Amino acid sequence: MPIQNVLLLGATGETGGSILTGLLDAGHFDIKALIRPSSAQKPEVKDLLKRGVKILVADISSPVEELEQMGIVTAAKQVGIKRFVPCGFATVCPAGAVMRLRDHKEQVLNHIKQLFLPLTFIDVGYWYQFSFPPLPSGKIDKYLPPGMNSKMRGDGTAPNLITDLRDVGRFVARIVADERTLNRYVFAWAEEMTEKEIYSVMEEVSGEKLLVNFVSAQEIEDEVLDARRLFEKEPENQELFGRMSSAEYEYSKYVRTDNRGEYARYLGYLDARELYPDLHPKKFWEFVQDLLDGKVRRPYSGVQ
Amino acid sequence: MPIQNVLLLGATGETGGSILTGLLDAGHFDIKALIRPSSAQKPEVKDLLKRGVKILVADISSPVEELEQMGIVTAAKQVGIKRFVPCGFATVCPAGAVMRLRDHKEQVLNHIKQLFLPLTFIDVGYWYQFSFPPLPSGKIDKYLPPGMNSKMRGDGTAPNLITDLRDVGRFVARIVADERTLNRYVFAWAEEMTEKEIYSVMEEVSGEKLLVNFVSAQEIEDEVLDARRLFEKEPENQELFGRMSSAEYEYSKYVRTDNRGEYARYLGYLDARELYPDLHPKKFWEFVQDLLDGKVRRPYSGVQ
Repeated sequence: MPIQNVLLLGATGETGGSILTGLLDAGHFDIKALIRPSSAQKPEVKDLLKRGVKILVADISSPVEELEQMGIVTAAKQVGIKRFVPCGFATVCPAGAVMRLRDHKEQVLNHIKQLFLPLTFIDVGYWYQFSFPPLPSGKIDKYLPPGMNSKMRGDGTAPNLITDLRDVGRFVARIVADERTLNRYVFAWAEEMTEKEIYSVMEEVSGEKLLVNFVSAQEIEDEVLDARRLFEKEPENQELFGRMSSAEYEYSKYVRTDNRGEYARYLGYLDARELYPDLHPKKFWEFVQDLLDGKVRRPYSGVQ
Repeated sequence: MPIQNVLLLGATGETGGSILTGLLDAGHFDIKALIRPSSAQKPEVKDLLKRGVKILVADISSPVEELEQMGIVTAAKQVGIKRFVPCGFATVCPAGAVMRLRDHKEQVLNHIKQLFLPLTFIDVGYWYQFSFPPLPSGKIDKYLPPGMNSKMRGDGTAPNLITDLRDVGRFVARIVADERTLNRYVFAWAEEMTEKEIYSVMEEVSGEKLLVNFVSAQEIEDEVLDARRLFEKEPENQELFGRMSSAEYEYSKYVRTDNRGEYARYLGYLDARELYPDLHPKKFWEFVQDLLDGKVRRPYSGVQ
């Protein structure tokens, strides 16, 4: 396979880290990571160099997130980038006031499209790493994302696309080397599971009986309305933005049930599992086994 | 072919009228036209009955245009409509503040998608009927759309998708009976022509030498900014909305050059000419001959 040049933004982040590993493992990418001057001396960046990644230190004036991608898109057009992969990497969700986070991405997508810049938009569902409840024994508590508890939303039967964060990069390495995905949306996923099924797998693999706290659809809707109201009063408050985004994720995933393969196909996404039938992503039960074996890293823990 | 039920809104309008004829000619549609009580006694509606169209008189509270489609979309979901074709039928243009008219359609599209309602979005380029300059002899002046003159934008080399209004319905009859177009965007078109080519065909068919008034890209951009500024001051003023929309059409068609097949494909549209290679839409030169032969109706003239 010919060597493909990639400029990666956010290489030291969670999704970026998985993508970096996926690209390195694929072996046919020449990777440059774009790093801000203020981060150039960080140990994570030194680690990138050790892994054979070239570092491009550039003064991008604002953080590389959602709306701040606009300037980068324009620059990408100017230098003739062959394919731009904007920040997606989340659950399947329609544009238009369901999730504010998704709408920010839509603005970037519109900007890309207005520039006639080749693109691929990739969603990956929700991470396994953020989709499991605690075990009563406390065995896996250190891997729990902050705020995670024994919640089950609605009656626990809403299916959701979920993927091991470690598989995101494997999918991306295939998708960005594939002409079929040019100017298309793609959803990568490992399982489409309900919370009931997730709890059942957890019990089976761990041998423990799980606690369940039901949260009604009404409670989820109320929290969305509350969180939006609070955020609108203080639109600069990042904590309130985070609370609203969490609430909107729950609403989209469990009340609207957007994050499903059938809906993704309706929205025009290609199915990465159909494109790459030989790519076998980790099953959820294997992930639970990894949790019990201490082989999982907790996202945002600062440890790579 | 099995009989397909169609509920048509706007059947007495320009695009709706072409669609109605296309559906009737296809012969396998059972057509109901939705008519407001205030229009039920109009001669155009009586004419529909004569043509075998059933009339459904319903009190839709607001005009069937852009944003007002929202309620109809929701109703369509409730009654289980198998495919919703929202108002498109215009030039290819990206969402996101290029054309206000297009953005209204995007809001309807988002609403449809949020409801998981099967859809097909159809654009048809610009009508032949609105794409020709006058002849110096004045022969075809009665067919000229209001405000049409001998303008040529930029250097006259921007290609645009154009279609005879009379062919819109022929395309629609094929598209809505086709499983391949379900949940897809489709562009129907007859020619992709520059203004230079349009002028040249006009001269060839008419034997007359045309006048040309060049309008620079800068003038088009200035007019967009002016028109937007004026509209923003009086957002309820329909005349100013019309002026802004005209200016945005010119900007999108001749400065951005959005209304092209290559760009439509990039945006994810299917090409109706590829889907229906046996459908031969009227060529522009044939339309010009029709103009000279007095066989063309001027849109919005009140004559069917």
